[in-house]
Amino acid sequence: MTTLPTTEHVRLDLRGPVLWAWLERPDARNALSPQMTSSLIATFEAIRDDRTIRVVVIRGAGGIFCSGGDLKSMNASGAAPQTGSPDPLKESNRRFGRLLELVNAAPQAVIAAVEGPAFGGALGLVCVSDVAIARSDAQFSISETTLGIVPAAISPFLVQRVGLTTARRLAVTGARFDGAQAERYGVASATAGTPEAFEAALTDTINGILRCAPGAVAETKRLLHRAAGTMPLPQMLDLAAESFVAAVRGPEGREGTTAFVEKRKPSWAVKV
Amino acid sequence: MTTLPTTEHVRLDLRGPVLWAWLERPDARNALSPQMTSSLIATFEAIRDDRTIRVVVIRGAGGIFCSGGDLKSMNASGAAPQTGSPDPLKESNRRFGRLLELVNAAPQAVIAAVEGPAFGGALGLVCVSDVAIARSDAQFSISETTLGIVPAAISPFLVQRVGLTTARRLAVTGARFDGAQAERYGVASATAGTPEAFEAALTDTINGILRCAPGAVAETKRLLHRAAGTMPLPQMLDLAAESFVAAVRGPEGREGTTAFVEKRKPSWAVKV
Amino acid sequence: MTTLPTTEHVRLDLRGPVLWAWLERPDARNALSPQMTSSLIATFEAIRDDRTIRVVVIRGAGGIFCSGGDLKSMNASGAAPQTGSPDPLKESNRRFGRLLELVNAAPQAVIAAVEGPAFGGALGLVCVSDVAIARSDAQFSISETTLGIVPAAISPFLVQRVGLTTARRLAVTGARFDGAQAERYGVASATAGTPEAFEAALTDTINGILRCAPGAVAETKRLLHRAAGTMPLPQMLDLAAESFVAAVRGPEGREGTTAFVEKRKPSWAVKV
Repeated sequence: MTTLPTTEHVRLDLRGPVLWAWLERPDARNALSPQMTSSLIATFEAIRDDRTIRVVVIRGAGGIFCSGGDLKSMNASGAAPQTGSPDPLKESNRRFGRLLELVNAAPQAVIAAVEGPAFGGALGLVCVSDVAIARSDAQFSISETTLGIVPAAISPFLVQRVGLTTARRLAVTGARFDGAQAERYGVASATAGTPEAFEAALTDTINGILRCAPGAVAETKRLLHRAAGTMPLPQMLDLAAESFVAAVRGPEGREGTTAFVEKRKPSWAVKV
Repeated sequence: MTTLPTTEHVRLDLRGPVLWAWLERPDARNALSPQMTSSLIATFEAIRDDRTIRVVVIRGAGGIFCSGGDLKSMNASGAAPQTGSPDPLKESNRRFGRLLELVNAAPQAVIAAVEGPAFGGALGLVCVSDVAIARSDAQFSISETTLGIVPAAISPFLVQRVGLTTARRLAVTGARFDGAQAERYGVASATAGTPEAFEAALTDTINGILRCAPGAVAETKRLLHRAAGTMPLPQMLDLAAESFVAAVRGPEGREGTTAFVEKRKPSWAVKV
Repeated sequence: MTTLPTTEHVRLDLRGPVLWAWLERPDARNALSPQMTSSLIATFEAIRDDRTIRVVVIRGAGGIFCSGGDLKSMNASGAAPQTGSPDPLKESNRRFGRLLELVNAAPQAVIAAVEGPAFGGALGLVCVSDVAIARSDAQFSISETTLGIVPAAISPFLVQRVGLTTARRLAVTGARFDGAQAERYGVASATAGTPEAFEAALTDTINGILRCAPGAVAETKRLLHRAAGTMPLPQMLDLAAESFVAAVRGPEGREGTTAFVEKRKPSWAVKV
């Protein structure tokens, strides 16, 4: 059993196979903070090898996903002379990049549940989820250029999520977009108009994931990330064939194909 | 004139410039078999240098595209001790990967005509076509994770077809999707609600391809696959410029631009 | 203040921060010519370091974007024996590729304003814009294969714009598509049914860009292009963190975050 870390600006709530990670910083509309970043990093590192935790839902408390970077603090840091070496501002941005890498590659399925704003860095967090469910009136933007700064750590994940075409357009115009547009761009995979429909979509998505074998999900995500990279195709197919055999001969593959033949549900199929 | 190979679980029907490859294994809902894979490999290898065969249509007999991997046989293989070295299960998966590479890079235009189910590996076959026409009620899924196994050989082609975002979502949820959704994701390019509309869409697509010069189609596919790879842009543009000149100075380019100037159809433009 | 080059087949009109580049070759439906390519190259090279020019709009005079390659001249060149070495036809294609590279990577935001035809090479120009606004009845196609030639210089930009799936389908069928379809494929980002709506969409897009800091736009485009390339993720995130700090500590970042804290517009936010 994994011991979950002590967190700040993030509230963890483990319910069976589902870990709810609530972004919670009510005095700043859940804006990103060094504590929030460190807490999420610690959480994803702690659960990495735990296949009993099968889904992580990232969600904002109080109906607000996350308002993005903390601009007041950024303004103060930018004005202050650089004290450390390396520059602590750079370290902090790189650390946020580390978080995005970690969530993106998490062996668990990750759901982003988006109500209200998801600007700048918060949009980056949405882009590294496996499934994002948004309220129709959620608000997104790559707001950085309107503030004289740049979408930095989020840039590779943004391009991977929506493609260069949409990313460059949204970035050079700073345009706001809502849940329906986010679905069209591929940022979100489904939208819900009401709180009830939103909760129902989350439950459906979680139950869909819980029909899938946890080890197979982890290995599949690894394969898909590799496939999205620059590995030459024949090498990728060699590696995939090895994964395939390991899965078919492994306990999950044995159970899953046997359950299919016996017309019953496999052992891992549960519901919340 | 190409001699077509003798095939098993695949029925070949050459009609002028169009080769129909019918997946036909009625006792197993056209599930993939080693024979089917080998027959398709032999077919695509046999026609590689034949520019008189200009379109290949992959379609399932009996209104069933292909139900995917043969799970009964997979279950039996997984249970049996590994006898060969290398593992025959691995060889078989890698061979299916080889088929996907071959279809993907075929010099002919390839159409996938999808009625009924296209699960797992069958979805992979759809992903390597140039054009996929689906019945609205066709059924797709990346079903592997629900069976405790992984989408292996299909993973790079899936990511190339629908992008990482959609691929990861569909894979971690194992969700079924129909023709209309397949069109939205880019798996299919058009859907048809009735058998008549389906046949008409196939004929239209074939006739569209038959307006295009066969050598130009082959070279264009080669260029586009290169462009989707990791070649540095200046090198890609050098190579493209060479292709361009070869085409303009070659017999097809001479005929095509002359036909344009003379306001007539080029010699290769035929209809089925 | 930049001195704009003398141009042929392109008319330049600088209006404050917006440079309008009108393709203008009325006797040939604005078909691409060596002069047009050279003029556009000279223009984008001349303004490269000028951050007072913040938007470039590429548009065709007379309600015609650009009919694509000059087929009559191509036919004549293909028929003539090759005189130079290297082949002048190859040089000319490579030079068009150089133009596409240059527009794609321009530090300014580039808008393609598409009325009427945008075939072949003209479609390539649309694909390297940051935002493309099209009339609903605009006409697009990858027409090359129907002419016995190949989409050469445009191939990498086409694949980057619409993905391999759509690119290969459009290329092997030579299919025409209109503005609405172009929007669905990602070629265009918005369409307008009337001349008035078209002008209004252009003005809105320009004003959206003019809310964004010019240096931040340039640096963001650089980051997004890198992110779309093959750089390993950790290295990309290191580089992004450096960009981030430079922006936050730089004059635009200082002004932008201060304006945010002071609830006022930043100095660069203007309207046309």
